[in-house]
Amino acid sequence: MATHRLEPTLWYNALGSFPPVLHCADGDTVITETIDAIGYDRDGVARAQRPNPTNGPIHVEGAEPGDALRVEILRMTPTRDTGWTFDVLAANVVDPEAVRSLPPPQRVTWLIDRQASTVRLENPPAGLEHFVLPLEPMIGCFGVAPRGGQAFSNATSAENGGNMDYRGFGPGTTVWFPVAVPGALFSLGDCHAVQGDGEIVGTGIETTFEVEVRLSIEKGRKLVWPRGETATDIFSVGNARPLDQALQHATTDMLNWLTSDYGLSATAASHLMGQVVRYDVGNVFDPAYTMVCRIAKKWLPARRTARP
Amino acid sequence: MATHRLEPTLWYNALGSFPPVLHCADGDTVITETIDAIGYDRDGVARAQRPNPTNGPIHVEGAEPGDALRVEILRMTPTRDTGWTFDVLAANVVDPEAVRSLPPPQRVTWLIDRQASTVRLENPPAGLEHFVLPLEPMIGCFGVAPRGGQAFSNATSAENGGNMDYRGFGPGTTVWFPVAVPGALFSLGDCHAVQGDGEIVGTGIETTFEVEVRLSIEKGRKLVWPRGETATDIFSVGNARPLDQALQHATTDMLNWLTSDYGLSATAASHLMGQVVRYDVGNVFDPAYTMVCRIAKKWLPARRTARP
Amino acid sequence: MATHRLEPTLWYNALGSFPPVLHCADGDTVITETIDAIGYDRDGVARAQRPNPTNGPIHVEGAEPGDALRVEILRMTPTRDTGWTFDVLAANVVDPEAVRSLPPPQRVTWLIDRQASTVRLENPPAGLEHFVLPLEPMIGCFGVAPRGGQAFSNATSAENGGNMDYRGFGPGTTVWFPVAVPGALFSLGDCHAVQGDGEIVGTGIETTFEVEVRLSIEKGRKLVWPRGETATDIFSVGNARPLDQALQHATTDMLNWLTSDYGLSATAASHLMGQVVRYDVGNVFDPAYTMVCRIAKKWLPARRTARP
Amino acid sequence: MATHRLEPTLWYNALGSFPPVLHCADGDTVITETIDAIGYDRDGVARAQRPNPTNGPIHVEGAEPGDALRVEILRMTPTRDTGWTFDVLAANVVDPEAVRSLPPPQRVTWLIDRQASTVRLENPPAGLEHFVLPLEPMIGCFGVAPRGGQAFSNATSAENGGNMDYRGFGPGTTVWFPVAVPGALFSLGDCHAVQGDGEIVGTGIETTFEVEVRLSIEKGRKLVWPRGETATDIFSVGNARPLDQALQHATTDMLNWLTSDYGLSATAASHLMGQVVRYDVGNVFDPAYTMVCRIAKKWLPARRTARP
Repeated sequence: MATHRLEPTLWYNALGSFPPVLHCADGDTVITETIDAIGYDRDGVARAQRPNPTNGPIHVEGAEPGDALRVEILRMTPTRDTGWTFDVLAANVVDPEAVRSLPPPQRVTWLIDRQASTVRLENPPAGLEHFVLPLEPMIGCFGVAPRGGQAFSNATSAENGGNMDYRGFGPGTTVWFPVAVPGALFSLGDCHAVQGDGEIVGTGIETTFEVEVRLSIEKGRKLVWPRGETATDIFSVGNARPLDQALQHATTDMLNWLTSDYGLSATAASHLMGQVVRYDVGNVFDPAYTMVCRIAKKWLPARRTARP
Repeated sequence: MATHRLEPTLWYNALGSFPPVLHCADGDTVITETIDAIGYDRDGVARAQRPNPTNGPIHVEGAEPGDALRVEILRMTPTRDTGWTFDVLAANVVDPEAVRSLPPPQRVTWLIDRQASTVRLENPPAGLEHFVLPLEPMIGCFGVAPRGGQAFSNATSAENGGNMDYRGFGPGTTVWFPVAVPGALFSLGDCHAVQGDGEIVGTGIETTFEVEVRLSIEKGRKLVWPRGETATDIFSVGNARPLDQALQHATTDMLNWLTSDYGLSATAASHLMGQVVRYDVGNVFDPAYTMVCRIAKKWLPARRTARP
Repeated sequence: MATHRLEPTLWYNALGSFPPVLHCADGDTVITETIDAIGYDRDGVARAQRPNPTNGPIHVEGAEPGDALRVEILRMTPTRDTGWTFDVLAANVVDPEAVRSLPPPQRVTWLIDRQASTVRLENPPAGLEHFVLPLEPMIGCFGVAPRGGQAFSNATSAENGGNMDYRGFGPGTTVWFPVAVPGALFSLGDCHAVQGDGEIVGTGIETTFEVEVRLSIEKGRKLVWPRGETATDIFSVGNARPLDQALQHATTDMLNWLTSDYGLSATAASHLMGQVVRYDVGNVFDPAYTMVCRIAKKWLPARRTARP
Repeated sequence: MATHRLEPTLWYNALGSFPPVLHCADGDTVITETIDAIGYDRDGVARAQRPNPTNGPIHVEGAEPGDALRVEILRMTPTRDTGWTFDVLAANVVDPEAVRSLPPPQRVTWLIDRQASTVRLENPPAGLEHFVLPLEPMIGCFGVAPRGGQAFSNATSAENGGNMDYRGFGPGTTVWFPVAVPGALFSLGDCHAVQGDGEIVGTGIETTFEVEVRLSIEKGRKLVWPRGETATDIFSVGNARPLDQALQHATTDMLNWLTSDYGLSATAASHLMGQVVRYDVGNVFDPAYTMVCRIAKKWLPARRTARP
């Protein structure tokens, strides 16, 4: 169970079967510093191209198609005193007629107080003078290489993960990705200091972090979509457009999870989901949208299988 | 500020310009017993047709097109010891290929313990023997007559409200509807003991309640979509398909709300929404889906206007 | 088989159970002059409100829920020398980012040469000096009262028809609507001199016509969606958003039509549809979009039933 | 202007920056035999994996990002006496509730009469005994490598082309793709003997062809989406889900085409499109759907530019 420090010298802008920049073993921990969504590092130096340059890929020895890669997000430490966002709602999240009156988007700076763990606008407009947000770090873009020789831009997402921009992907969360190629080829980047649901201004508060993750293999788990677990909940992730289809993917995956791992019949799983399910909206800005189907663990029966 | 007791003898299955069954004044309170989604009353007697028979319409004196009808949900007291649900996910919330393996939906009974304020399945399947839910009452279907001589089935929703099936519509919540006809013509029904997001089995736990609401007029408010407020949040509601469009409606409405009532520029409102907005999924079972755009009141600047 | 001349003095802007303005018998013919989409008549006099004021409703004696109303479009004679359109693509048919650069829509005049049966812009912009279109009359909005006490704006469409804006609804076409209320309550209006697919500028060339239709009842036909027939094709119509769902409705209806009336198995119908189906796009401007699923009659087996 | 014969020994199942199997010059012609959608060749020998193995990629010397690759489909000669289809509508093209009653899809054989240029089922079900279709060859899947190091499965489509399954991609049609990588890296496969709109049974009549294409470079054309031209029409192609978004892409691209190459203002282009545009539905089976926005050349003003 080694700990690796990954210091990238090149960054990809897609998740695919690119040459790995690090090899690690099942259960190893990786510590790495991410750069921001347009490639600036902790010192404000441009290091890579947009969109969403990611650290990786990391080859996890022994991971094979059909396995799941378990990613425990152990720590996210901010490494810069500033972040940035766009300053206006994205055209695709408002009514088409309302686009006419949106101002053109500009990039603006936020100040990150790493002692206080807060974030605020450098130059707040009227009404937001006291708008100070608690730091809530999250990974915007992470995942594994997709199947079939494919490679997807870090500006979108699919079965293999990608730019899901879900607030739930913060420290303490464990995520599983479906391994589609030998070694899984895991990458991560595009971390946010804070972000509302949907990433509806086209960004979270984009900044740099030191991220620590533990990477493990669960053999033969045969996932279709990413899954996750927090202290209180389990969740399935669907990535597609329209949001309806993302919801269908996430809902179907949760149904399959409850029936395969928790021993529920389709009817029992439906009862549970019908009355306690929660949906969270990830990215609704990119080509594929993200919908999360979540259930509090307190409602779950004991797992029939040993697997999480 | 009178209190009226509405004891319906007929129920409509649509929101429209039907003859009012009650007239009340601005600020009056109405107490009424709802029947369930297929028309059974507290005693299990069939009183009305499906879908979602509603109590009303109630004519609020002085309400005119362009006003808002404010509905304060003061109390929801369950009046029956049983509720019912369908027992399997709806076909439209899973992947199309997954529909092939869904069993046909059956109606099943839940037991409501009105002392303990809990709900559980009468005959729980394996794994749900200990599945006991706290009672969380909500109004599934309510709203006002739509504009232009229209009338919409209680099986769907639109600008005028309707079958939104949002968990947030419970006691303590205030809702505003856009008045489109003189008197507003407010109706309510289809109350649930509990419901997960999306009403994804096609029902909440369907039962009967005594509901108490206060109805008030806010002149000239010119709403487009329903809005609401809880102890902690304000929210805008969009009703449409696909869910993406419902989200666009709700997001645009929140943008308009923040700029018109809270004095924020489009940019300031975008900053606020971009980093703190939450989306909640209402109904994703009916012809129109419901998406809620919600913001915690703690982030809001002081209102520029006197209106809530 | 009488012929009626309907000269309206009031126009509704919705399809619903409004008091009929004409009663006719099964098989009767109705001749009526339509006004344009914003209520101007042949003489340019404002007679009614927008949107899409319709002539009707017409009560067809003997029509009952579960029957089909057959509407034969016998003739459409233009009655005015001008029509009008909007002059820019609608916001919802272009990419959201492209809306920013669309000019605000203006109404412009087209000249209708009733002798030559052609249409051209009154003031053509550069490049369209020779843009002269053949007159291709069509009914934009027609249908029957919907079920369940509902009424839908003439700005949208549903199972009962409405503002479908399909080019195929011209002289020579026969259309069937599902009767949902006694007498069917048929209305028509919003006729166009020409229109491209989708009505993507938000209008066809809006003008006035004298329209002649024959109205007949087909007992117990139990339609769900409008259907049509031309000299060469049969077609099913789906009205919904997104366009994907409209396509699902139309496709499902065609499958049902082929299996119930033409004696094909689901497999045989699928073979036929899979290799020869054509989709036509109706309205993609209104709340509900229209998709048409069409099959050339030359591919059809003999009808098993006597019904068209 | 050489003619190359490409005889593949390996086939990719994605469009991406894979090592080219042929280099050719601007204006060269390539003749190649395609195998079917699941990898069987003219002799029924399994040569490659599904989905949609493609011949290529072909490196066109001198093609650079920002150029367009012009592909003239010169000839498609069927090389096998059989094709196959699935025998039932795909689950995603019917109403979700209708999926329950669809039989499971089976593969069935069609007979191709290469002398008569006709196609018929080997074992026609009742009602289709006389169902004989004219051969209408088309290329299901073709395109170039996408930008940003991406690679997309031949089961879907995007800006770079892919599995668009549009009937219009037959002999006589010219298609332009946006070049995103040096050499363009063009591939083609998945040819159909016949196919209805939408590929709604999940296949056309899948068989093998000898295909002849001429590949040329148009410098600096800066396309976003594929475009095409037939003897009578020009068309823009949008690939996305939902179909609404594919329509937005294709419509926006046609607007841009008319304004940039034909010298029309946005208003003039809107007039033209509004009254004469036709939409054709390509694939509605795969992850991305295809919508074609088409205009008859007779309506177009003279091109301002020399480019087609």
